Amino acid sequence: MPKVLILSREANEYEWLIRSAKLPTLEFTADLAQSDIVLGEPKLIQEALPRLTSLKWVQSVYAGVEPLVDPSQRRDYVLTNARGVFGELMSEYVFGYLLFHEKKILARIQAQQSMKWQRSESGVLRGKTMGLLGVGSIGAHLAKTAKYFGMTVRGYTRKSESSTQIDKYFHGNDLFHFAEGLDYLISVLPRTEDTNKIVDTKLLGALPPHAVFVNVGRGNAVDEPALVKALNEGKLAAAILDVFEKEPLPEDHPFWTTPNLYMTFHTSAISYPEDLTKLFIENYKLYTAGKPLNYVVDFERGY
Amino acid sequence: MPKVLILSREANEYEWLIRSAKLPTLEFTADLAQSDIVLGEPKLIQEALPRLTSLKWVQSVYAGVEPLVDPSQRRDYVLTNARGVFGELMSEYVFGYLLFHEKKILARIQAQQSMKWQRSESGVLRGKTMGLLGVGSIGAHLAKTAKYFGMTVRGYTRKSESSTQIDKYFHGNDLFHFAEGLDYLISVLPRTEDTNKIVDTKLLGALPPHAVFVNVGRGNAVDEPALVKALNEGKLAAAILDVFEKEPLPEDHPFWTTPNLYMTFHTSAISYPEDLTKLFIENYKLYTAGKPLNYVVDFERGY
Repeated sequence: MPKVLILSREANEYEWLIRSAKLPTLEFTADLAQSDIVLGEPKLIQEALPRLTSLKWVQSVYAGVEPLVDPSQRRDYVLTNARGVFGELMSEYVFGYLLFHEKKILARIQAQQSMKWQRSESGVLRGKTMGLLGVGSIGAHLAKTAKYFGMTVRGYTRKSESSTQIDKYFHGNDLFHFAEGLDYLISVLPRTEDTNKIVDTKLLGALPPHAVFVNVGRGNAVDEPALVKALNEGKLAAAILDVFEKEPLPEDHPFWTTPNLYMTFHTSAISYPEDLTKLFIENYKLYTAGKPLNYVVDFERGY
Repeated sequence: MPKVLILSREANEYEWLIRSAKLPTLEFTADLAQSDIVLGEPKLIQEALPRLTSLKWVQSVYAGVEPLVDPSQRRDYVLTNARGVFGELMSEYVFGYLLFHEKKILARIQAQQSMKWQRSESGVLRGKTMGLLGVGSIGAHLAKTAKYFGMTVRGYTRKSESSTQIDKYFHGNDLFHFAEGLDYLISVLPRTEDTNKIVDTKLLGALPPHAVFVNVGRGNAVDEPALVKALNEGKLAAAILDVFEKEPLPEDHPFWTTPNLYMTFHTSAISYPEDLTKLFIENYKLYTAGKPLNYVVDFERGY
């Protein structure tokens, strides 16, 4: 009988949801040595790894699995991460901020506070161009929402060209052609060696000064001092950052007070147990049938 | 030869756009007595009406045509208004504010200003319920966008049930069933006798206290003191108002300082000459072919 161990701050909710699905063969266990399946948060699982002596499969409830793909850790099991569940939430977050910017919501609040009937024209998304750094399942959903709003979408990927919602793909050295004339640059890149500081002075300089940068991927993608400089010098209209090189952000970090920089403290898309349970159950059925699992992480690649 | 007079603050742009379409028979005129067609803004057209002695057709560049349907004015011509062009813009506006509310954008800005790493959970649109007061072409577009974001949509109309995006229609005395449990109440109602103060103490009281009210229709739909009271007493989470009983809003109006009330000074959807020219040209072709025009206003009904 497969035995699952849940290592999550929301373990009770996960157990209740999985039990409600009445899977005939699955047992729950609290015994690390007994469990062949572990469902939970990467950091908690990393701590338990040495004692998970029967481990065959880990289902992460997060997309980011850095603690588990770290080269110091064992890799003798199948690691699957959370994919396909964050697209809707990320679309709500990203387009919330894009519209916040276009509709000048903050300026209207300030006009109201000064009791000014301020009729300055709003911007529109329709007709604008968005560039996605990384087009996995989240990027593909953002592209779909951008198309819904009548936008043009460019995608910069390592080599994949799988989303039909992308108007034009770019790879490798084409990064600066990709950036040229973008109204919005959105990073959904995972943390890997290849994504370190991809958003640097040169890339930021290739964007028009009215462009807005949004980072919902990982903080390592950004050269943080370069971003501060670009915003201070007005070379970028705004930046919306959900992720940072170091989280929580250190108290003396310049981001706290950089103009036109909006921070959201890694809250853009949280893992809903309902969504993750559905994903776990699908994978569990494949697991018991001896079939390949969905969303298998490549330890070398890191995602 | 049909002769068109343009009465708009953007007359030059309209003329240039229409000339670019190279309509074989159309002439432009500045002579009020000569023009059978007038394109423009209702208020400017109303002032010219007594001297428009050859008038056959007026194309308004706005949706709201109050100055022209006023009972004191002549009605011996065909009046068409702007429809089908504001849906996208209204969706951007309304969903911008809905997401601004759900994603707690203002609270995150305040947390950043206090240098607090504030991880409180955001709300989501997915699964929420929106109620539309009025389902014309703008309401139908809002419903479509709500469905895109995974919401449930109710529509309250006089009697029409033409949008397939509405999950459930309500009419007449069913207003309070319609309001029950709504997360969002959106008014897109035109100004008519029947829509006066439809959003009153009773309707606001039927909404749950976490509900948000948005008015992108006309100001007459709202009992303004009742709305101030509901917000002051915390019976409503927020109100976003683009339109008002009196515009510009008087300096001593309580709305300026009512908590959780956001004003946008009638800027939610402006008339883009590109959109309106397209609509005018379609109608012009029907006009010269002697066919019924699109978007004819019923003077009695007022829209």
